Amino acid sequence: LVLNLFTWTSSVSINLRSVFQDLDLAAVYVSDAQYNRNIYFDTTPQAVRLYQLYNHWVLKVLLYFFILVNLGLAVFEEPAVITTPIWATMGAELLCLLAFTIRLVHYAKVIPRDKFWKDPKNICIILTLIDMIIYGALKSANCHALRWSRVLRPLLLVNVTEGRQLRRAFRSIRNALPQIFYVFLLFMFSVLIFSLMALKLLGKRGLKTINGAPYFTNYLDIVFDLYVLVTTANSPDVMMPAYNASFIFAIFFILYILINTYIFMSVFLAVVYNNYKKYLKEEVRQLVRARRHKMARAFAVLQERQEGAEPVVIQERWNQLIRLVRPDISNSHRELLWSVCDDKNQGKVAFMQLADLLNIEVITLKSRPHPLQGLCPALYLSAPSRLLCRLVQHRAFVITYDLIILVNAVFIGLDEENQVIANSEWVFLSLYLLEILLKLYVFEPRGFFSKHNFWNWFDTIIVVSALVATVVNSAVKSAGVYSSRQILDIVFILRVLRLIRVVDSIQRFRAIINTLIRIGPAILTFGQLIIVVYYIFAMVGMELFKGKVKFYGDDSVDPAKAFCGNRLLEGTDFAKLNYCKNNFNNVVSSFILLVELTVVNQCSGFAAVTHVSARIFFVLFHIVVVIIIINIFVAFVLEAFFVEYSVDKSDLQTSLEKKIEELELSVAQWVTL
Amino acid sequence: LVLNLFTWTSSVSINLRSVFQDLDLAAVYVSDAQYNRNIYFDTTPQAVRLYQLYNHWVLKVLLYFFILVNLGLAVFEEPAVITTPIWATMGAELLCLLAFTIRLVHYAKVIPRDKFWKDPKNICIILTLIDMIIYGALKSANCHALRWSRVLRPLLLVNVTEGRQLRRAFRSIRNALPQIFYVFLLFMFSVLIFSLMALKLLGKRGLKTINGAPYFTNYLDIVFDLYVLVTTANSPDVMMPAYNASFIFAIFFILYILINTYIFMSVFLAVVYNNYKKYLKEEVRQLVRARRHKMARAFAVLQERQEGAEPVVIQERWNQLIRLVRPDISNSHRELLWSVCDDKNQGKVAFMQLADLLNIEVITLKSRPHPLQGLCPALYLSAPSRLLCRLVQHRAFVITYDLIILVNAVFIGLDEENQVIANSEWVFLSLYLLEILLKLYVFEPRGFFSKHNFWNWFDTIIVVSALVATVVNSAVKSAGVYSSRQILDIVFILRVLRLIRVVDSIQRFRAIINTLIRIGPAILTFGQLIIVVYYIFAMVGMELFKGKVKFYGDDSVDPAKAFCGNRLLEGTDFAKLNYCKNNFNNVVSSFILLVELTVVNQCSGFAAVTHVSARIFFVLFHIVVVIIIINIFVAFVLEAFFVEYSVDKSDLQTSLEKKIEELELSVAQWVTL
Repeated sequence: LVLNLFTWTSSVSINLRSVFQDLDLAAVYVSDAQYNRNIYFDTTPQAVRLYQLYNHWVLKVLLYFFILVNLGLAVFEEPAVITTPIWATMGAELLCLLAFTIRLVHYAKVIPRDKFWKDPKNICIILTLIDMIIYGALKSANCHALRWSRVLRPLLLVNVTEGRQLRRAFRSIRNALPQIFYVFLLFMFSVLIFSLMALKLLGKRGLKTINGAPYFTNYLDIVFDLYVLVTTANSPDVMMPAYNASFIFAIFFILYILINTYIFMSVFLAVVYNNYKKYLKEEVRQLVRARRHKMARAFAVLQERQEGAEPVVIQERWNQLIRLVRPDISNSHRELLWSVCDDKNQGKVAFMQLADLLNIEVITLKSRPHPLQGLCPALYLSAPSRLLCRLVQHRAFVITYDLIILVNAVFIGLDEENQVIANSEWVFLSLYLLEILLKLYVFEPRGFFSKHNFWNWFDTIIVVSALVATVVNSAVKSAGVYSSRQILDIVFILRVLRLIRVVDSIQRFRAIINTLIRIGPAILTFGQLIIVVYYIFAMVGMELFKGKVKFYGDDSVDPAKAFCGNRLLEGTDFAKLNYCKNNFNNVVSSFILLVELTVVNQCSGFAAVTHVSARIFFVLFHIVVVIIIINIFVAFVLEAFFVEYSVDKSDLQTSLEKKIEELELSVAQWVTL
Repeated sequence: LVLNLFTWTSSVSINLRSVFQDLDLAAVYVSDAQYNRNIYFDTTPQAVRLYQLYNHWVLKVLLYFFILVNLGLAVFEEPAVITTPIWATMGAELLCLLAFTIRLVHYAKVIPRDKFWKDPKNICIILTLIDMIIYGALKSANCHALRWSRVLRPLLLVNVTEGRQLRRAFRSIRNALPQIFYVFLLFMFSVLIFSLMALKLLGKRGLKTINGAPYFTNYLDIVFDLYVLVTTANSPDVMMPAYNASFIFAIFFILYILINTYIFMSVFLAVVYNNYKKYLKEEVRQLVRARRHKMARAFAVLQERQEGAEPVVIQERWNQLIRLVRPDISNSHRELLWSVCDDKNQGKVAFMQLADLLNIEVITLKSRPHPLQGLCPALYLSAPSRLLCRLVQHRAFVITYDLIILVNAVFIGLDEENQVIANSEWVFLSLYLLEILLKLYVFEPRGFFSKHNFWNWFDTIIVVSALVATVVNSAVKSAGVYSSRQILDIVFILRVLRLIRVVDSIQRFRAIINTLIRIGPAILTFGQLIIVVYYIFAMVGMELFKGKVKFYGDDSVDPAKAFCGNRLLEGTDFAKLNYCKNNFNNVVSSFILLVELTVVNQCSGFAAVTHVSARIFFVLFHIVVVIIIINIFVAFVLEAFFVEYSVDKSDLQTSLEKKIEELELSVAQWVTL
């Protein structure tokens, strides 16, 4: 009997432990589904706990911090913005590598052993280590050394398990590449044919360019010039000599522009967009499948089998699960979710939606009384106070402040040296402060500053910062110190930013702005994509072109200033237009130059100081950034706007809203995405 | 009895007449549906006959001819390319107006009286007449006169009843305008805010532009400069002074470019595209409805009521109808159409598809024997002849000729002054001729030159023209006359065009090219749209800027050449870059300049020679052409490619194909759209 009792106790304790472990596992599945994580982790209790730790936000922030440090090292490495000894940058990089390795080891403990070794991250880290050793050895032997592994750094940003969206973007590019490639071949064929025609038509006519050089006599130069014409960078200069000779030749260039700039560039957009849509659908389908799979596993862990009935999840376990997954949501919210999921007491089908339901933000804006009403009801509910409230909530209040903003805009435009105008700033500041205070008096503060009230936050931050900056500025001024330009700049920027608020008053504008805000996070993905590509091109560009073009400050009297410190640039347009600061001498200049190249691809200066083949670098950059990435960006914005135009809310959200209406909860609740 | 017989005869003759009239009417309805004509004509026999005349292709060609003459008058009018006395141009214009009026009167006879007076064409013609009278009177009194009605001319192109697609394009633009307007307002707001910030940040820093002018000190100039930055025309020049001062300011410009050039321009495309799709769907729906309506009326005219049965069209009348609508199609084709329409003997539903069916081109490529086989079967069917046929049809034959084309490309690229290379041209020409002759020997000539064999036509025309041009060129040369540049140019162009053929050999390229060829006709609609807009802007531009900028030929020694004949341009970039030929001095220059402005909107020269407000003209042009029309063009190409990617054939065509297979016609038949 003792033995029996012991067995029973231990079985109960095992059961209890297993219940909690099950709950943990289910919670992990649900939150994986909720955040679209896609890692096949081990299901042993230990691995699950490690996996939960792996997904902890602190570790993720740390990882991103180290990635940023790693990428940021380019500022300190040769060619440096801020010169730092080699041991410091090498040490920092080693530290970053260590952090990545720890993360990797953690990851290896979480997933089944056999999946680990296929990961490209390992290779990146090992290659970087090899490069660092070679570089260190060569440097200590005073040889010329090259940190070639720097181009691999942004790949870590792509490859860390958290860069899911970025990876998806890269995958969609990779999938679109074959089709883009064929269109590109056809496009290049067209450029080559047109170049051949240009050579035959114009090469023998003895025309001269504006600089007196022979015009269109070298085939490869023509190909390059016409390629640049597609980017519109050298329009109309490239056609002027021919056009001056006869207007017939203009027809040649017009045809070229029509076919290559307009039709082919549109075809590129079409191909990229089409592939983007196609693979996006496929990815979403896979995502949904993976999510269903996860939710099914969570259900399998939690279900209770009743004889003769379908397996169900009882409410108690459900509550435990929700408490684990989202400890922050309130009891009433949980009840709401249960009532939505348990529609017709089905249990299972509705359970599948839980991950989506958790992503929908339910804003429980209880129509709480204003705190002042609680503190001093007699005053707050008095007739003048009520009148004030009605005034502030009136449409005229908004219109008045829009007018004030417009007047303010005029005052900002006027010369601030004038004393009256300088003082008017205080009037406007106090008016804006008054507006915020009045609104806080009328509206419940927690509602006013709730997460979805973008413009209230924007307003308050801008006005308070402007107040602080203006006060600091005045203090500095009145202390007799020369007014600091930086503080003044900040004051100006804040003043102008205040004007943006007027947009919110116009319904039509608000719709457009809201769409833009909504696609903001996804634009950040493209920001990462662009940074990866820019970083790689900046690293290569710095190795190729560093120090070839020098910038001399405004106060420099060095005669080399006229040709950017390189005699090869003497008399070129590059030097004449004073583009000396557009160079690859450090990572910041490189990035700014790459942005300029994205807008208008002009590289004659760099071909002049190195070799004609340097043009390949710039053409490659144009193909990768403008033809592929910018087109994906445009495709993405198009798709986002079409979705905004066609649907406003998902079905799930509608059902949740309907449920809320049905239940007629005593608290006022709004649902927004 | 006699009376009775007479009545009977007359009733028969009335019946007969009415039968033929009915058939006429039905044929008109069917061909209206087939060509998507949308005129509500009178159904009296006389009006129907007039309507048939109205739709006759000779009258249409005449109308287009007069429109071309009317538009082309701009070449002869002040400021003229070819100076012509006023009486000649005025006379020609009167003739055109007369032609339009006759067409209008014809139209008035066709449609019910009350619909006529709403037509805007009438107003255009009357306004033009008034303008001509005023102009003639003022000119004869030697006063300054302005032909303001010239901007109305392209509207005739839009308004003639035949310009249906053009009208549809204009309608879709008009419908999209409100949404575009709101986005544009927001965009302008953003530009204004950024300009204000730029003024505050950079205006007081005492920076100078490359020309030594103060940098960013005038608000309106900043707004304009930043607007031009959106068109990428002045990038990176506009930011260089600020960037040279500090790299922090580059961030300002990068943000500006990101928001305004990339995001807002994409939003414009999204709005235009979305509206385009929406209204296209609506238009297509209306078109289909109108077509169904027409076919129903045709059916109502033709149907025979049998007691207790559904009304049907009997085959005899059907044949009569088809013979009227499409006299050119063969009996077997008509049988085929009948068997498709008469599926399950329903009659009516299938009749509705007739208009679509007639639009599908059935190529009856009977596997006719080669004519040589008929002439000389012994020779043509001999073993060597058969071997030759097999060789020509072999894949290696195509590859051989592709290689020949590539070698030819290299030879074209080399210097043609070299005697060997000059003579090689004869070798290549004879090789190409041989290819065509061989193909004609192997394939049936009528099949080889059938309508859908684009590349065979292309090949033959190019090679034969090249042969003729080369022979003429040699003759001129050997006659001792100096070789004419024009003929040589044509020879060169034809030689290079020959190379394009290689594209057809690669399957992937062929698919893209076929799509481009297929959307060709619709691109022509946009060509008309662009010409209408260009014409209006050219007319206004010529009135505003004619004679302000002068072009001096290469051999001119006039000192005014350095500043394009206008002292105001002395030392400006416009004169330095030798843009003098970019002017509004005649309609041809204006059109070429407008194309350049479409690509890159630079207008500083014209603002300098007239007034700063001239910039408004250029900004307006940018808004209309780049933001609206080019975006519609891009939207159109996108849509065309998506349709190509998603469906290959319409359902109707598939059913027709299936029917052909079913019937197992003894002749080989292919169906292509």
